[in-house]
Amino acid sequence: MSTTTSSTGVTAPLGFRAAGTTAGLKASGKPDLALVVNDGPRHDAAVVLTSNRVQAAPVKWTRQALSDGRCDAVVLNSGGANACTGAPGFVDTHATAEAVATALGVGAADVAVCSTGLIGERLPMDRLLAGVTAAAAALDGSGAQGGADAATAIMTTDTVSKQAVAHAPSGAAWTVGGMAKGAGMLAPGLATMLVVLTTDAVAEPAVLDAALRAATRVTFDRVDSDGCMSTNDTVLLMASGASGVEAAAEELQQAVTAVCADLARQLVADAEGASHDIAVEVVGAATEDDAVTVARAVTRSNLFKAAVFGNDPNWGRVLAAVGTTDAAFDPDALDVSFNGVQVCRAGGVGDPREGVDLTPREVRIVVDLHAGPATATVWTNDLTHDYVHENSAYSS
Amino acid sequence: MSTTTSSTGVTAPLGFRAAGTTAGLKASGKPDLALVVNDGPRHDAAVVLTSNRVQAAPVKWTRQALSDGRCDAVVLNSGGANACTGAPGFVDTHATAEAVATALGVGAADVAVCSTGLIGERLPMDRLLAGVTAAAAALDGSGAQGGADAATAIMTTDTVSKQAVAHAPSGAAWTVGGMAKGAGMLAPGLATMLVVLTTDAVAEPAVLDAALRAATRVTFDRVDSDGCMSTNDTVLLMASGASGVEAAAEELQQAVTAVCADLARQLVADAEGASHDIAVEVVGAATEDDAVTVARAVTRSNLFKAAVFGNDPNWGRVLAAVGTTDAAFDPDALDVSFNGVQVCRAGGVGDPREGVDLTPREVRIVVDLHAGPATATVWTNDLTHDYVHENSAYSS
Repeated sequence: MSTTTSSTGVTAPLGFRAAGTTAGLKASGKPDLALVVNDGPRHDAAVVLTSNRVQAAPVKWTRQALSDGRCDAVVLNSGGANACTGAPGFVDTHATAEAVATALGVGAADVAVCSTGLIGERLPMDRLLAGVTAAAAALDGSGAQGGADAATAIMTTDTVSKQAVAHAPSGAAWTVGGMAKGAGMLAPGLATMLVVLTTDAVAEPAVLDAALRAATRVTFDRVDSDGCMSTNDTVLLMASGASGVEAAAEELQQAVTAVCADLARQLVADAEGASHDIAVEVVGAATEDDAVTVARAVTRSNLFKAAVFGNDPNWGRVLAAVGTTDAAFDPDALDVSFNGVQVCRAGGVGDPREGVDLTPREVRIVVDLHAGPATATVWTNDLTHDYVHENSAYSS
Repeated sequence: MSTTTSSTGVTAPLGFRAAGTTAGLKASGKPDLALVVNDGPRHDAAVVLTSNRVQAAPVKWTRQALSDGRCDAVVLNSGGANACTGAPGFVDTHATAEAVATALGVGAADVAVCSTGLIGERLPMDRLLAGVTAAAAALDGSGAQGGADAATAIMTTDTVSKQAVAHAPSGAAWTVGGMAKGAGMLAPGLATMLVVLTTDAVAEPAVLDAALRAATRVTFDRVDSDGCMSTNDTVLLMASGASGVEAAAEELQQAVTAVCADLARQLVADAEGASHDIAVEVVGAATEDDAVTVARAVTRSNLFKAAVFGNDPNWGRVLAAVGTTDAAFDPDALDVSFNGVQVCRAGGVGDPREGVDLTPREVRIVVDLHAGPATATVWTNDLTHDYVHENSAYSS
């Protein structure tokens, strides 16, 4: 196995190889095919898939493939989502998994498949299958570079690749690594994002599944770039057991959450056309559900998001969004602050809005419901000319 | 009473006078205060108010004032929403109603108040009260022009004033007239819109209330320009009984619905920054609720709306939005057409998207769920650079 000590992504944990290559699926000629292989000795895995009822062929395939908690490899392509392509599209996904299985000497039912790109078009299978062969050949000796190449090959409108790594909180000898793509269409129930997480900890599928669901609930599920939900979202966690150390469930969850949080913040920071990263923190909520509901209502307000783009601390639009929810609160008790300045106090005018500086990219809105002890934060972006431009000109 | 035969708005029915004037609430110096008076002989009324829990002072006042089913006059101002202004804001609304009552010789508790404009700022009451006096003085001899003046004085970012009229379907001698403002922040549960409807039919408050709720449910509640809900929405229906003819409940509902539908379409056609008016029609739904849910999900997709701005018949984004709902449908049975071209058939690729012409302002999307007989249409607009510009530069 190649050395992976310098990798900051999926090849950081022991037992994983990765590669990224150019199959020719993108008109731009940029890399578009990635492969991540778990060399074991164990092949435990868990997955969280989009909750959209319109699901791409690779999502349907991967749900089936992961149902036994085993995954030997995942193949990911950009340049085409293979969504809304009917039975022929599913046959294409199956053929892709078979090609990976043949190249690696594993079973096709243990190969996950992820796709991202335009909906409603068949993939050019001749190029894709040739790309699988090339990616498999590139695995050997790829080392740390393989993880970086894979992270690059899954990019669509992303401007930078996203990788993250976390070590066991206790200092135990295992690691969690990850990579992600996604730059727009980010939403709860997961975004147009593909995420592959790896660990060399020893962990049963049920432990992995619990850790992954707990992690995505407070990270990717709380990123809401534009309220849109994708047909292809996949977050896959594979465990090789190559460290020989069994992870405590709680510790594994912490490390997986740390990697997911890191990747989620990278997704927000690279969202299509955004000029501000906005954290909407709701405090004083009766329940965590209430806090999430209120935060989500604010992050989905186009009027609020456009105001932030214009550096306008428009707290009236925040209150208007809060008021659409059924969370517990008294409208006359609401406080709102923009970057530390409490512009709304007790449902009315607070400190002067002129005191708020919204020129930094990072914006923090705090809404205090004064209704209990619970809190939650949802991240979003501002609504900009570039968002409109990218999403009216880029057919995805 | 002045002649009203040529009015196309609130003064079209017998028994109403109206005026619009400039109180100086707007920096632009444009008209900003309107008065509509019901001279009777009857003063029955009904109102539908925003379902936002953060409610402006005039909304709280008007709910109270209308609780007995009587309304003698309504005063409306643009240039300030009087929302999130606490107890002092409510005192301002009360003082406004008292001023109208004094000028007209009616009870303050029978005067409705509506405000629109910036949230979180007190109104300049000296100017507003002087404006009330001026508006009351302008009522006499205002005739048909009074209705038009009132419709102009309630505009904010509206580029044109909105009026509508409908006659009794049976030919009975009564009429329904109306005016509206609202150009953005349009959403279900009503929009940032103020609507005043008048009729000279004889009708009890309960009959008016039933007609108004039935009408708004299928008109204003199905306009969703940007998913945002206002703190000030008000739709008021006043009946003078001046025709002496009692309206059949069913007929009254039809005429009120016709006026509401006309005004709703005018609101969409004048939405902030829009370059397309989009009707999303869902057919083949199991229930009307399902049809509305699916249509609303599509009309709230920023990605879909940006695609229409770019004249891109991106049916994948329609399917992705449909898939977020819990409506009854089989994803593999969905059909989608853009302006009559069925670009998606049975959940997959249909006719070539090149056949779709999205250059006209009017766009009609039809989604067939193939799950039942129910149907519904929701109207929205595209997401444009001008929308972002207006809502990042205009603090409202």
